[in-house]
Amino acid sequence: MLFRQLFDAETSTYTYLLADAATGAAALIDPVLEQVERDLKLLRERGLTLSVVLETHVHADHVTGAGVLRERTGAAVVASPRGAPCVDRMVRHGDLVRVGGLELHVLETPGHTDDSLSFLCDGRLFTGDALLIRGTGRTDFQNGDPGQLYDAITRVLFRLPEDTEVYPGHDYAGHTVSTVGEEKRHNPRLAGRSREDFIFLMQGLRLPPPRKLDVAVPANRACGHPLLPRSLQV
Amino acid sequence: MLFRQLFDAETSTYTYLLADAATGAAALIDPVLEQVERDLKLLRERGLTLSVVLETHVHADHVTGAGVLRERTGAAVVASPRGAPCVDRMVRHGDLVRVGGLELHVLETPGHTDDSLSFLCDGRLFTGDALLIRGTGRTDFQNGDPGQLYDAITRVLFRLPEDTEVYPGHDYAGHTVSTVGEEKRHNPRLAGRSREDFIFLMQGLRLPPPRKLDVAVPANRACGHPLLPRSLQV
Repeated sequence: MLFRQLFDAETSTYTYLLADAATGAAALIDPVLEQVERDLKLLRERGLTLSVVLETHVHADHVTGAGVLRERTGAAVVASPRGAPCVDRMVRHGDLVRVGGLELHVLETPGHTDDSLSFLCDGRLFTGDALLIRGTGRTDFQNGDPGQLYDAITRVLFRLPEDTEVYPGHDYAGHTVSTVGEEKRHNPRLAGRSREDFIFLMQGLRLPPPRKLDVAVPANRACGHPLLPRSLQV
Repeated sequence: MLFRQLFDAETSTYTYLLADAATGAAALIDPVLEQVERDLKLLRERGLTLSVVLETHVHADHVTGAGVLRERTGAAVVASPRGAPCVDRMVRHGDLVRVGGLELHVLETPGHTDDSLSFLCDGRLFTGDALLIRGTGRTDFQNGDPGQLYDAITRVLFRLPEDTEVYPGHDYAGHTVSTVGEEKRHNPRLAGRSREDFIFLMQGLRLPPPRKLDVAVPANRACGHPLLPRSLQV
């Protein structure tokens, strides 16, 4: 398996490339519109064929590259049925997404947004904005719900083996990876906190709105594609 | 082995943590002064003891955390004899640095600076600013020499197995890792270029001076430690 973590410095967003070395089939998780050329170049250089683009959720802080990548490569866009209407395949908890010989297991992990998914592939867990390294996604817009997020993290993600590698959708402190065990013990929003504590903490954060909320959410509901009909952009 | 790639967004610098899981002995390669607290926290959380700090070279674009880490942990600072006089152990091509049960092999790879080292540990190559992903370090200050850099990359680094993972000291495009084979084939400064071509290319770059050159080089010759005698800071 070929695995690459890619970073968009402007929005501190991680994109992940996973590919089956035997067949050359590849997946991108959470690509960023401004980085599409970089990502396509890497795919070309490694002789890979993009077969799917997976979205962990409808992002509010950057515009997805999914629609443009679909147009350029024919890849299918995969996400939650609660998310963008523009996707090709809607997946639910327990579904399997095959990329050549790779298997990505779909986990529903709502709470940051109601459409949030995580993906598990070969000991690597891609958590989007549900579980971050020593943090979590916020829960104050896009039908976020702190109780739901607590349940998703503690009942779904934290039940995976402790050495499962955690690859988040963002990091703002320069961390690239953690593990389930490390987050159980050292995530300050979760370690030793009850569900009620967590809800109280999240409701008290009073964060400013995400920088690109008004632009990013409508754009991402259209898979980031500026040429889609306006009817899909609301 | 525990391995972590860490990023300083302000200077696009990568720091690497390597640790022997059996003994808890750890090494940091190219720590950044402003990130010392983050790095110490991670060491504490993982129950690790910092035994060595390795410098790939005297940096011109950020101040090292080596001196402060040494003071806080007792770790030994390891670098080239051509670099900072403040280090504890000066190493040469072919030397071995042991970190618990881990072995880091020292490779002299001058040309970006005359003191540039790379380190090889268990299939991972830490190249500092000699070889970058799809690029190289510049060669126009600190006794840089494009011919020397070409030789170091093509005769030392490119003779390693093709699947050796390349972890650079910086990246400005959001790449985190490459391989020797990928760089041989796709590095635009090297692929298909003769030594003469490379020298011509590097001599024509006409880059502005690094932002922190005047501050960083003297500070790094004192291991980044503001309390060292002034005599060591020149």
